[in-house]
Amino acid sequence: MPHASINAERLLARIHELGAIGRDDRGQLTRLAASDSEKLGRDLLVHWLKAVGLDVAVDRIGNIFGIWQSEENAEQLPLMLGSHVDTVINAGIYDGCYGVLAGLEVIETLKEQGVTPARPIVVAAFTNEEGVRYAPEMLGSLVHVGGLDIEAALATVGTDGTTLGSELTRIGYAGTVEPCALTPHAYVELHIEQGPVLEREATTIGAVENLQGISWQRVTIEGVANHAGTTPMAMRSDAGLAAARVGLFLRDHIARSNAPSVATIGTMRFEPDAINVIPSRAVFTVDLRDPDEERLQALENALDAQLRVIMAEEGVTVTVERLARFEPVTFDRAIVEMIEVSASARGFKSRRMTSGAGHDAQMIARIAPAAMIFVPSRDGISHNPREHTDPADLVAGANVLLDVVSRIAGGREVGQPHS
Amino acid sequence: MPHASINAERLLARIHELGAIGRDDRGQLTRLAASDSEKLGRDLLVHWLKAVGLDVAVDRIGNIFGIWQSEENAEQLPLMLGSHVDTVINAGIYDGCYGVLAGLEVIETLKEQGVTPARPIVVAAFTNEEGVRYAPEMLGSLVHVGGLDIEAALATVGTDGTTLGSELTRIGYAGTVEPCALTPHAYVELHIEQGPVLEREATTIGAVENLQGISWQRVTIEGVANHAGTTPMAMRSDAGLAAARVGLFLRDHIARSNAPSVATIGTMRFEPDAINVIPSRAVFTVDLRDPDEERLQALENALDAQLRVIMAEEGVTVTVERLARFEPVTFDRAIVEMIEVSASARGFKSRRMTSGAGHDAQMIARIAPAAMIFVPSRDGISHNPREHTDPADLVAGANVLLDVVSRIAGGREVGQPHS
Repeated sequence: MPHASINAERLLARIHELGAIGRDDRGQLTRLAASDSEKLGRDLLVHWLKAVGLDVAVDRIGNIFGIWQSEENAEQLPLMLGSHVDTVINAGIYDGCYGVLAGLEVIETLKEQGVTPARPIVVAAFTNEEGVRYAPEMLGSLVHVGGLDIEAALATVGTDGTTLGSELTRIGYAGTVEPCALTPHAYVELHIEQGPVLEREATTIGAVENLQGISWQRVTIEGVANHAGTTPMAMRSDAGLAAARVGLFLRDHIARSNAPSVATIGTMRFEPDAINVIPSRAVFTVDLRDPDEERLQALENALDAQLRVIMAEEGVTVTVERLARFEPVTFDRAIVEMIEVSASARGFKSRRMTSGAGHDAQMIARIAPAAMIFVPSRDGISHNPREHTDPADLVAGANVLLDVVSRIAGGREVGQPHS
Repeated sequence: MPHASINAERLLARIHELGAIGRDDRGQLTRLAASDSEKLGRDLLVHWLKAVGLDVAVDRIGNIFGIWQSEENAEQLPLMLGSHVDTVINAGIYDGCYGVLAGLEVIETLKEQGVTPARPIVVAAFTNEEGVRYAPEMLGSLVHVGGLDIEAALATVGTDGTTLGSELTRIGYAGTVEPCALTPHAYVELHIEQGPVLEREATTIGAVENLQGISWQRVTIEGVANHAGTTPMAMRSDAGLAAARVGLFLRDHIARSNAPSVATIGTMRFEPDAINVIPSRAVFTVDLRDPDEERLQALENALDAQLRVIMAEEGVTVTVERLARFEPVTFDRAIVEMIEVSASARGFKSRRMTSGAGHDAQMIARIAPAAMIFVPSRDGISHNPREHTDPADLVAGANVLLDVVSRIAGGREVGQPHS
């Protein structure tokens, strides 16, 4: 196989152009799923997909597909590349967009080279991967694999009270294609690592062989609102203090267990939220992750037990709502090996690794052989304007993707689950 | 002195009528200072003041005064009764309104009895006592005593981004009277206890001889936003966990010190406030109170020291903004004794006590002899829809107020600070 390469300048230019869309007055990037600013990002992507000559399809949950097929290969299951273009609040420019635009770049490169692939190649941008506005995260790819009913998904109520379906209609991305229409032959997702491992080890390519399990819960603690000046400390049922104990417990528990688990309380809301009133209610989310399903369950159980302790000791009531639960995922061994071989052939150091983040690839893995390619994140930072990957690494990842695509489209066998 | 009594039915009816104003779709009572709903409450009060034949004056900070004076006594300093009609979010109906409406009831009763007081009697409703929308609390009475410049007060920006001055203009309560125009001869404020002491001791009347010092601060903790799934626990700078430590520290510290101090974290906000992002910022308020100034300062110092510990241990930065600081207040001994004598004469059990809450009386005490009368709060609850005082106790408190007013207006000497 010749070492043709992607057009580095074109890829980087598109990443920066898309990254300029959805910025507020202070210059902060926020493209929440199905928002006005995300519509602008979607519009630019669709413009590029059409400019490259791809057929554009949008399904009912707003997933966008750029399809490169010919009369000869249209009957074959497509090789799918993808990620997402929605972002968190005050985001960086690489998370998600890099995978989508690198997929487009790979297709454009292959077209320019006059390659005739044995099967269609599709680049996908899945709806609401971040899960900031609507829960769960990876909603679009979850619907795509039949893991969530389309009507239930469209009825999802966001943090701002909107429903996803009406917002998709409003921004013009409530498509007509039935979800699940495009079952891939295989799926490869290129993504920034969002963690410190590759940078720390001076390694360019991560061959992602599995992915952490994720548990999302919303906890509501109800105490008693009372006057901050007249209620002795011992007579309080303070929902805020009860909530404070939860995050500190989780950190201590994980430190004691010596496990690679992570726990995050990312959102917190007090009621009535007044300076001189003891909080009657604290509502917060708990994000638990572990690459091992048994350990993840043990962590969930430890949280449950601690919530019962807090309930008794603080005189509060606690209710827990499950928002999302995904078991750890094992990716396709054959694709992971192709990533390693392709990296090596280009002279890039690679290593196998676990994804700590959730990705659309974990959903597509339910219906097709899938794997992911990681490139380094500076200081391990993401979901933050300081998110950065060196241009050379971005180009390296896209070239490895190009090679893996060439191998699969050229007939290399996939579908060998990692043992 | 004859034991004339107030019109219990009229007082209770007005309390319930005013308490019905400012309710949302769910029936929750919220009349934040200078809001649309508080305007309706103010309008009703002014309607009643005029119906009783009082002159109504509104000063530039929106304080409302109902003035009963005659040609004979107009040169004398007035005896002032009062409190406030703004509320917290999801409030009860007694806090503040009881004192204002009982003041009105006392004046109406004296008028009906044909009494000719030796000095004017004024009932006052001070702006923004609760401090929920604008800081500090007791803003209107603070301006009234010259403790806060009127222009600065009008420029105060609220939690919703509004300025108090423009909101007062909008609701029609930016009056023309210069603040401080009405210096009282003495001030008496009747209020629900908002604590459990009177009920626990089966005592009807609290003769409030002093009032806790109050310290309000806003704390901002800055960590680093990062991905909840890929950032190992040990590599985080989690502003939310750092904030959690503050409230738990304060509770533990007070428990160890065995002091009557209280500490409350009533508001909390995370940024970016996303389920899968480690909080980069936590902003919260700290309300500290103690009847002893030295102990209150020691508690503030302990908080400062702990914030420095948290800064070092959590890898975060901490900034503190002082929102309000009021030293403990000692009320006028002569008025406190009149309250006790009046309660006793009507056969009500009374006790001297400390106010744990801030009240307009603590501001007026800077310029005139002042004291407060408390009546029991069921279960000690206030700032909550469950706030309740038995009608018999409400009537008892108003009758004691009537008697104290009669004594002062009849010439009893005031102005003897508690030793």
